[in-house]
Amino acid sequence: MVEFGKPFREDFFTLLEKDVTPLNHGSVGLTPTQIMNQFISTYSATVKYSNKNVQAEKYVEQLKLLGKYLNINYENMAFVTNATLGVNIVLRSIPYNFLTDKILIHSLTYGACANTVKFLHDQYGIQYDIVELNYPLEDNEVVRLFEEKLSTGQYKLCMFDMITSMPSVKFPYKELTSLCFKYNALSLIDGAHAVGLCDLSFIETLKPDFFVSNLHKWFFVPKSCAILYVNEKHHDIMAPFPLALPTLSESLHDSHNLINKFCHSYVQTYSTAVDCISTAISFRTQECRGENAIREYQMFLRSQAIESILTIFGPGTELLENKNKTLRTPGLFNIKYPMIGRNEQILKRFQSHPNAFADFRQRYINTMIKEFKIYVPIFIYNNAIWLRFSVAVYNTIEDYEVPIKKLKHIIEKNLKLFIK
Amino acid sequence: MVEFGKPFREDFFTLLEKDVTPLNHGSVGLTPTQIMNQFISTYSATVKYSNKNVQAEKYVEQLKLLGKYLNINYENMAFVTNATLGVNIVLRSIPYNFLTDKILIHSLTYGACANTVKFLHDQYGIQYDIVELNYPLEDNEVVRLFEEKLSTGQYKLCMFDMITSMPSVKFPYKELTSLCFKYNALSLIDGAHAVGLCDLSFIETLKPDFFVSNLHKWFFVPKSCAILYVNEKHHDIMAPFPLALPTLSESLHDSHNLINKFCHSYVQTYSTAVDCISTAISFRTQECRGENAIREYQMFLRSQAIESILTIFGPGTELLENKNKTLRTPGLFNIKYPMIGRNEQILKRFQSHPNAFADFRQRYINTMIKEFKIYVPIFIYNNAIWLRFSVAVYNTIEDYEVPIKKLKHIIEKNLKLFIK
Repeated sequence: MVEFGKPFREDFFTLLEKDVTPLNHGSVGLTPTQIMNQFISTYSATVKYSNKNVQAEKYVEQLKLLGKYLNINYENMAFVTNATLGVNIVLRSIPYNFLTDKILIHSLTYGACANTVKFLHDQYGIQYDIVELNYPLEDNEVVRLFEEKLSTGQYKLCMFDMITSMPSVKFPYKELTSLCFKYNALSLIDGAHAVGLCDLSFIETLKPDFFVSNLHKWFFVPKSCAILYVNEKHHDIMAPFPLALPTLSESLHDSHNLINKFCHSYVQTYSTAVDCISTAISFRTQECRGENAIREYQMFLRSQAIESILTIFGPGTELLENKNKTLRTPGLFNIKYPMIGRNEQILKRFQSHPNAFADFRQRYINTMIKEFKIYVPIFIYNNAIWLRFSVAVYNTIEDYEVPIKKLKHIIEKNLKLFIK
Repeated sequence: MVEFGKPFREDFFTLLEKDVTPLNHGSVGLTPTQIMNQFISTYSATVKYSNKNVQAEKYVEQLKLLGKYLNINYENMAFVTNATLGVNIVLRSIPYNFLTDKILIHSLTYGACANTVKFLHDQYGIQYDIVELNYPLEDNEVVRLFEEKLSTGQYKLCMFDMITSMPSVKFPYKELTSLCFKYNALSLIDGAHAVGLCDLSFIETLKPDFFVSNLHKWFFVPKSCAILYVNEKHHDIMAPFPLALPTLSESLHDSHNLINKFCHSYVQTYSTAVDCISTAISFRTQECRGENAIREYQMFLRSQAIESILTIFGPGTELLENKNKTLRTPGLFNIKYPMIGRNEQILKRFQSHPNAFADFRQRYINTMIKEFKIYVPIFIYNNAIWLRFSVAVYNTIEDYEVPIKKLKHIIEKNLKLFIK
């Protein structure tokens, strides 16, 4: 058995360039070499799968395997290119009453998803509200803020995350799902980071209306591939994007509405990634020794990494966490960069001049990527500057030591340019 | 210089399994090995491109190269996953007046595109009409049939093809574009097969409203990658799918509306294929010796292939062609299968029992793929059974000889099962 960390990276992630420090799995994922090889050989064999029914069979085969692995009924799932596309499909499939229906989102909603709601507003006049969330918050505060709105009974649909993007915090998604049922709002769960980080058996017990998750991030399927879960109540209204051809394989899936609707898009755009799901499952089961082993390693390394970064950043730094420690996830954490002393004035300037921060951010990114082959996202949130770090099975404590010193150096060097 | 045909296949399309006869390029394309290698190495390097501005730069770089090669202003183009997705984006972006607007399509509209129009009808109440086209038709008949409808001035938008899917015929697309202008209908050209088969310099002179084309079919870019052209009049209304984040790189592309809108989706879903466009251009210029050489070879082999198939199929067979020979394209042709004698009665049965034809078709496909590693689409059109063949630079006359005899054998064997 190969140990997680450095040996694991050297054995299974050989496509990564040697001098890169991979600290941004949350944004882009990283595919193990053996899965990538499967991707390439499947891709090369596309001539075999030029037939819709053959493709439909393969689509269903992967759907069944994943459904079994995740404890989700495969008939309630569809493969889509990415989570954001899934959110778009749901939001644009619902037959709204544009004069009266309202949507509820929150202030950490992923930009492209929030934009889709804004598009529905601009194009069709649908109304929406935003729950303002200023983390760190306790789960019950989050639930209360949503309930304040939902209890008015005004909302056709409520979209919320399992794990938000930036900052990355875990939401009380089970409670929010129940809340939606209570107040008769459709629940749309953006679980972009969920598969591979979270246990998903709640889906078939709580039965939200819609749920999406990428498979090419934490689950190791090649880009781009995601899952869309649709409660059976809503199969009829789903309109894939692009819309499918009429029933693909009548004999094969008469009653499997979602399969008929979605497997044509699969054929057209991302079949090859879907075909690698079985290999990803086997990689996670065999080489990674299962989901628990993965999460345990991530949680273990996460603690070590946080400690190391807090020490390197020094006074004024802070982990984004609440009292009950419910925001944490195995793969992601956020650290506040210390903007004290001379930097305090720069932070104020960034807050009043977003362009100055954008400028700083760009310089920071350029140095980081070009000179040091590191990438760690930086952003302003709740009156502070934050960095979001990822922890994957191929990471090792060394990734959070010398590279973080370099990162601090880059930040300080670029901040200096913004002293008035 | 490597000759087209067998030597070309052996040198540049090594990913194709040796015993496969590739006769369906029109459906799935086939990627040259060197472009696939570029795809793989770019894919592996995704960690480098985890930054939006770096990605935006690469996106624009490929856009500029392609624009120059196709004689289309790159600022009017966007990369999307496939042509059908492009059609969907256009059809779902337009701010219709659902009470009064009407859309015009035709009876050979690609199924998924026609379905999108039907979705707009079902979901929002938009009206649509269908121009019935029973080929073989002369171009002026096609234009007259469209003009009959368009001249009523009722249509907000008219969607038509450059080269239809099944049967594959070339449309009088320039005339139809002008007709749309004349009658004040937006023109949406589905050029799924266009890039790599047709000269596109008419785009910037005739300036249709919208145009889409796949790049992963005839242009040799890996799947899946397509181009969406949007007349500058309409940049403002375009809503990509999924919707983009707010302006990605303010400093970089202030005025380039389409770039800002579309490069985020590129990042999320298909950047790697886009990154191979420059390699595809170089392959077409160098190894293929340019577009003219490609088309000349295809037209040359096409004639030979048609002759061979007509001879093998025997009495009652026929090429789909009109008097003025304007339906032909370099890469595709349709042959009517002879349903004479005993088969005449089977054709009648298929026409009155679509399920029987679906059953036959499935058996035909299974035998063809599993036993002979050939795939040629079969369909009923205008009271006859047709087969659609593809001709690519790696095809050779041998592909249309012994394999076609096998094809005939498979068809006859399976037809026999349907004798009453």
